[in-house]
Amino acid sequence: MLRRATVAFVVALAVCGCTGPETSRSASGGPVGGQPPAWALAIHGGAGTIPRDLGAERVARYREGLERALRVGSAVLEDGGTSLDAVEQVIRTLEDDPRFNAGKGAVFNRDGKHELDASIMDGATLACGGVAAVGTIRNPITAARLVMERTRHVLLSGTGAERFAEEQGLEPVGQDYFFTERRYRSHVEGLGAGGREGGGTVGAVALDREGNLAAGTSTGGLTNKLPGRVGDSPIIGAGTYARNGVCAVSGTGTGEEFIRHGVARRIAYLVGDGGATVEEAARRVVEGLLGPGHGGVIVLGPDGNVAFVFNTPGMYRGAADASGRFEIGIWE
Amino acid sequence: MLRRATVAFVVALAVCGCTGPETSRSASGGPVGGQPPAWALAIHGGAGTIPRDLGAERVARYREGLERALRVGSAVLEDGGTSLDAVEQVIRTLEDDPRFNAGKGAVFNRDGKHELDASIMDGATLACGGVAAVGTIRNPITAARLVMERTRHVLLSGTGAERFAEEQGLEPVGQDYFFTERRYRSHVEGLGAGGREGGGTVGAVALDREGNLAAGTSTGGLTNKLPGRVGDSPIIGAGTYARNGVCAVSGTGTGEEFIRHGVARRIAYLVGDGGATVEEAARRVVEGLLGPGHGGVIVLGPDGNVAFVFNTPGMYRGAADASGRFEIGIWE
Repeated sequence: MLRRATVAFVVALAVCGCTGPETSRSASGGPVGGQPPAWALAIHGGAGTIPRDLGAERVARYREGLERALRVGSAVLEDGGTSLDAVEQVIRTLEDDPRFNAGKGAVFNRDGKHELDASIMDGATLACGGVAAVGTIRNPITAARLVMERTRHVLLSGTGAERFAEEQGLEPVGQDYFFTERRYRSHVEGLGAGGREGGGTVGAVALDREGNLAAGTSTGGLTNKLPGRVGDSPIIGAGTYARNGVCAVSGTGTGEEFIRHGVARRIAYLVGDGGATVEEAARRVVEGLLGPGHGGVIVLGPDGNVAFVFNTPGMYRGAADASGRFEIGIWE
Repeated sequence: MLRRATVAFVVALAVCGCTGPETSRSASGGPVGGQPPAWALAIHGGAGTIPRDLGAERVARYREGLERALRVGSAVLEDGGTSLDAVEQVIRTLEDDPRFNAGKGAVFNRDGKHELDASIMDGATLACGGVAAVGTIRNPITAARLVMERTRHVLLSGTGAERFAEEQGLEPVGQDYFFTERRYRSHVEGLGAGGREGGGTVGAVALDREGNLAAGTSTGGLTNKLPGRVGDSPIIGAGTYARNGVCAVSGTGTGEEFIRHGVARRIAYLVGDGGATVEEAARRVVEGLLGPGHGGVIVLGPDGNVAFVFNTPGMYRGAADASGRFEIGIWE
């Protein structure tokens, strides 16, 4: 397992400017060279400045949260469930975990409120849905899926999205549901400093036994963002994209840059039209279009190959597949 | 002038499946073959089912509205103003015109309210801004520009966007400002029918004397849309995109399809990465990715070449440039 993890994450090493071999998982005899796994899953819990002195206990708690989500998604896929179900269940698990900036534990905006964004996309049909700037929905990823499946729209925002979710049977929660002491301190400390980055966005990309790809992303956005701000997470082509036969992408970072450069769609374009591997495409976009520190992406190809690429000091992440792979990473 | 208009709009003819030569303006000795114009401008007032029996008086009023906007933008560019200023002023003019589905004259949503979307992008810097689902802003395109120029964000929605606009000095208007009898009838008639398309989105693309491209789009969205629905118009890469040296794009149609396929950015990829002409790129996306009746785009290249491509019966549109071109079109 150790060798595998080393190979899987050297892409990130190289991206970070650290010394290390330029090989990537696909180039070193991973699934591309052999039989593709029957299913595959990759997840993230945000990219950002993750202190090296985080402490063993906090590292363990983050790893535990990522492992739980990875197990939930792996079980769905192992049992023959759909990639959409796996993505939704992984993200619900991370939304419910107060350590990540999505659902419970979301950051505060400038007004001291929580406003959440999420989207999901079905690579088989290109069906997609999202919600933006919602404050009463416990699991925005499920609301995003309901937008996809039960409306003619792909994005609902604000109180309209909240009402829709309630009409669809999602029980509303109060703003206090999202409260965590840690995020409140960041809010108060950041008010004088003109705003800080959030970090901790969550996302998942999955390939199921039918060969269908799906992607999803959910976030509380940037700490002390302006009320009503919409980031890249709910926007198809910016923070989320999936297309069968090409790739599935979920991003995390400074959402404005992901929207400006259409990060998720650009990666899919480089793979689908340009013939790049998922690693090459992810690197070209994260290294070539995004500025240092702007974030990272997880990308899953139809062959089960996974790229984790980020230009921040760390990205909470994990990968699993039918071959028995089950890995968690935080730094390079 | 007649010959020019004929040549300029044959792309649309061919797209509509009508018989006609496959030549386009660029292929037939337009600006590409000669000296590029010092400035160029193209505008639209929406694509859709525009009845052939619209009546001479209504046709004249639409033409008058388009001509006024085209004159406003042409004057900005002729005087050495920026493409951004031209785009904003054109769109403000169309927002103030009750004939188009943007600003005054916007359609009603399912609740009988008006919620407006707009975005603008600077091709020189890739700076961009948008507002979504706003109900108190008379000129959403100006609010979008303020988001671009005065925040670290690229998209604000709902009441947060409305408050921001007011803080920036835009005087709020009541919902009754947007009322028109015609849109109200469509709302009431459509409620039983499960919703209808809006049509009448407005947009502009401009090239200024400095060689800078800009694009913008503004809309009231779809008639009887769900409250909070966000379409493609405020989303960079979906309804709006501009990049110097590549092209500027504004779209109009079924916004969900424009988001799903990333229409504006896809056209820019095909031009910038694929080497397609603006006409070829627009046709490949509108004919190849969008379904029949989904809408159209205006695309302006850095050489002043313009493509109008739509797969609906008509698109309100116009083009002008420093060579004296000044043309309005509705059907092919």
